[in-house]
This record gives sequence, C-alpha cells and structure tokens, in this order.
Amino acid sequence: MGMPLELNTMIVTKGREKRVEKNLFVLEKEGLRLYPIEIPIDVRKTMDGDSSGTALIKKVEWQNNRTTITYQLISLNSTN
Amino acid sequence: MGMPLELNTMIVTKGREKRVEKNLFVLEKEGLRLYPIEIPIDVRKTMDGDSSGTALIKKVEWQNNRTTITYQLISLNSTN
Amino acid sequence: MGMPLELNTMIVTKGREKRVEKNLFVLEKEGLRLYPIEIPIDVRKTMDGDSSGTALIKKVEWQNNRTTITYQLISLNSTN
Amino acid sequence: MGMPLELNTMIVTKGREKRVEKNLFVLEKEGLRLYPIEIPIDVRKTMDGDSSGTALIKKVEWQNNRTTITYQLISLNSTN
Repeated sequence: MGMPLELNTMIVTKGREKRVEKNLFVLEKEGLRLYPIEIPIDVRKTMDGDSSGTALIKKVEWQNNRTTITYQLISLNSTN
Repeated sequence: MGMPLELNTMIVTKGREKRVEKNLFVLEKEGLRLYPIEIPIDVRKTMDGDSSGTALIKKVEWQNNRTTITYQLISLNSTN
Repeated sequence: MGMPLELNTMIVTKGREKRVEKNLFVLEKEGLRLYPIEIPIDVRKTMDGDSSGTALIKKVEWQNNRTTITYQLISLNSTN
Repeated sequence: MGMPLELNTMIVTKGREKRVEKNLFVLEKEGLRLYPIEIPIDVRKTMDGDSSGTALIKKVEWQNNRTTITYQLISLNSTN
C-alpha cells in the first residue's frame, strides 16, 4: 500500500531533455520522483558525469508513474 | 535553502473542487503538497468533517508554490 | 543518485511490532519509509486485512536502509 | 491534517554540530526535515556561506518536531 518515490538531488538528463524556449527545458523520467523546486541544482548528462550547469525546477508533474519536470537553466559550465 | 512541503493523507476539498468529467475532479491547493498517488484516500469537505468518499489521485502538479491534483472518486459515502 | 523511499499512509505490522510499554510499540521495516507523524493513521496486521486500530507515530528513524517507527495506539477496533 | 516537512539538499550546521567520533557528527534541527541518506551532500556553516565539505548522512531521526541527523564528513574543503 506504500507509494514508491525517489528523492532526487540533481537533474540527470541522459540527453532526453526537450527545449521549450531559450533556457527552459522539459524532461520526463520513469517513476515518481521528488525534486527540490526553485532551488539551484546540478544538471548532468549522466549520473557520474561532470556537472553541465545549474538549474531551477519550475514545475513538477506526477502521472502514470512518470515524472515530468520543467526547468530553467541558470548557468552553464564552460567545460561543456 | 530547504523546500517546505506538506505530507497529506487525505483530500480536503473545502468545496473548491472542479468536476472535469463524471467522477474526475481537479483541486488546486496552496503550497507544495505530497499526496499518495493511485492509493485509495479519504475525501472530506472540511478537515474535521466526515468522509464524503474515497478517491484515487491520478495526477499531481507542483508549480508556483501551488499543488493541483486530479482525482477520481471511487466511492461516495451514503450520508452525503 | 536518487534515494528510494516509500510513502506510507498506514502501519502494516505483520505481527512484528514490539511493545515498549502500555500502548507504545516499536516496529522496524525494510527500506526508507515516509510516514505521517502525530497524525491518526490506521494500523493493520496485513495490508489487505481489516484495521486493527488507530495510532499516532511519535518517532521515525532511518538508518541502514531500515525504518524504525515508534507509535502509540490510540484506539483499538472491537472486532479484534 | 497535513504534516509540514522540509526537503533539504545540504547540511547547514550553524556551528551546532557535535562530534561523536573522528569524522562522525550529530546535528539537531527544528522541524521535520527530509534529507538524502548515503548520498554525498554539501556541508555549510551558513546557508549562504561557502561549502565547508561533503558528507554522507548515515541516520535521520524525527521526533517532537525535531530532526536529528548523524553524518560522516567524507571530504573537507581546503579553504576552511
């Protein structure tokens, strides 16, 4: 009767993000995931990769055991 | 730097729910609220009132410090 | 990098609770589980069984991927 | 009927941590706080200060509207 969820402290895109406009992206992930909203968090392409930037999550949607986040990239790491 | 949220174990409508179709309703609440999804929970009009039925939450959205839930009423209490 | 946790809206004892004193019990469960604290919740012996009473969780501990809750039974269902 | 909690993505000590042994510390905070466990997180003295190191939270306890975390410092920033 419990509801599995996953606490996430960074955004791991795996290159699946979609640009909505300028620096606003949408990313859909499997499962129900809890993210901090409006708090700067790391964006990475892979879990073990380097940080590619910092983002603010603006919106989180949970449905059909999937999580869709909309995030605003607020800084990009120059190494990328 | 923390993100306040509220764990909710029932739906308190305060009469503000909007019917989308037959037994599907949308309700918007202040703040970020964590609800169990796809698990039967009590629906009440007021926090201290009697249960008016049981619902399954199908969708949760967090944005602008507001939570919007879409829920399906699966049973109604006869006293209502 | 995510941390799996499970949102729980009732206490399922599976008969493994230990009485600490009068109506105070300790129960250890696998995994990290999020429970409402100081809010009346159902106590059941099995997930699909009848409610055996209502409790207030007083303390939650997370360690080594296990959750230990201390709860106070505030009412017992007469059918038990 | 909701339970307020706060999602925390870093440890802000405000200098109130207590050393238990070598690199193991205990910190008590107001309110119920959700922290990632066994995931490297930033340790800071103040919310807006520089990172003083990285830690793994080993244990979280919730009781009486207070959160006690036990964390292991796994790296120290040289600037401190």
